[in-house]
Amino acid sequence: MKTILVVGIGTGSANHLTVAAIEALNRADVLFVPDKGASKSDLAEIRREIIDRFVRKTDPRQIGYAVPRREAANGDYEAGVADWHAALADIFALLIADVPAEGTGAFLVWGDPGLYDSTLRILERVSEPVRIEVVPGITAIQALTAAHGIALNRIGEPVLLTPGRRLGPVEMDTVVMLDGRMAFLEADPDLEIFWGAYLGTPDQLLVSGRLGDVAERIVSTRTSARKRHGWIMDTYLLRKPE
Amino acid sequence: MKTILVVGIGTGSANHLTVAAIEALNRADVLFVPDKGASKSDLAEIRREIIDRFVRKTDPRQIGYAVPRREAANGDYEAGVADWHAALADIFALLIADVPAEGTGAFLVWGDPGLYDSTLRILERVSEPVRIEVVPGITAIQALTAAHGIALNRIGEPVLLTPGRRLGPVEMDTVVMLDGRMAFLEADPDLEIFWGAYLGTPDQLLVSGRLGDVAERIVSTRTSARKRHGWIMDTYLLRKPE
Repeated sequence: MKTILVVGIGTGSANHLTVAAIEALNRADVLFVPDKGASKSDLAEIRREIIDRFVRKTDPRQIGYAVPRREAANGDYEAGVADWHAALADIFALLIADVPAEGTGAFLVWGDPGLYDSTLRILERVSEPVRIEVVPGITAIQALTAAHGIALNRIGEPVLLTPGRRLGPVEMDTVVMLDGRMAFLEADPDLEIFWGAYLGTPDQLLVSGRLGDVAERIVSTRTSARKRHGWIMDTYLLRKPE
Repeated sequence: MKTILVVGIGTGSANHLTVAAIEALNRADVLFVPDKGASKSDLAEIRREIIDRFVRKTDPRQIGYAVPRREAANGDYEAGVADWHAALADIFALLIADVPAEGTGAFLVWGDPGLYDSTLRILERVSEPVRIEVVPGITAIQALTAAHGIALNRIGEPVLLTPGRRLGPVEMDTVVMLDGRMAFLEADPDLEIFWGAYLGTPDQLLVSGRLGDVAERIVSTRTSARKRHGWIMDTYLLRKPE
């Protein structure tokens, strides 16, 4: 049976790689690198930097693949995601077919493979039986709180992680991820916000303060950065002031 | 001003260290190592292994300190934590006083400094002004989902992180941490549980299944492991079956 390593590479800095992730990349016969299509070119650049810097084989075998664009426009979120996963599963099946018998292939996954990432779910749809090993990585949540120098939770209190489209009234400390439509604009202006984009990269942007005071600054920062880079990944913590 | 590095070292494997964490430990003039008192001896051993393996100075300066025991018995959780933090802040002030002027000291923090860890909050109580830098680390949550080979969240769904003492009825996917009293025993037996202890270490233990079917196995596994090691750190995900 083939082994597929699903390796968390952190959120944008090659320095986020763990020793275990470096060992995993060196163990793989084949590295799968999204390099075309909807994948962001800066991110492809960071993956290349990681491979150049940490993979000791002089010429590791890399198989590039195009990431299909998810149809966000059809209105049915779940059906859109299911179609996108099905398309990616077909691509993954071809990638895995290219791994030598008894060999090892590795996916380099942004952040951590367990947190708002689809790789494990897509692999479940591939019919060829494979052994899967997951290597944890630094998530955007850790990168966010480290950059702001704060703890995620209050003493003994819970924390909610939510995608932007599911953000409701903020009843506890809440981390919002995957928020393309700036859901914070509808939240209570008296909340504190700790916002970050391109976390871990040299382009990292941070804004924090009373939401009502800094929301417009986040919007303008976000809009101009997105135009400059062609993409943005951001996340934020909302909480009631102490 | 002195610089204090608060370095996440992951959950029990030296392989969880990131490149940034290794660089931070090598940048420090002094490493602060809890080595006596309530600190667990296996954990002190892993910290020593990390320093031996990754710090390139032949004789890095290490300052050991005893961690006072938190009085859990007084019934008032918040007052008990506040007293404990005050006692630790006095110790931290002495450690920081030992750092050379303009020099750098480093705390090695289990998991990630932002997630259910007190180091940042205790440093806020130290009166000497210092520059604080946080280096993110792999949390027990990532180690748990990686070990079970699962995603933390369902597609597009939120996740709750909570200490055991705050676990109520499970209305969404919920990660329970710091649970000394096995709060899962009061949860709906039809939930799925993914449990792990000593995550990332060679002693790692995993149990998963329908809660009603595996709860007793977790209790007995947990009890005998705790007796064997003298301590336990465990965490788990509860979720409704798909």
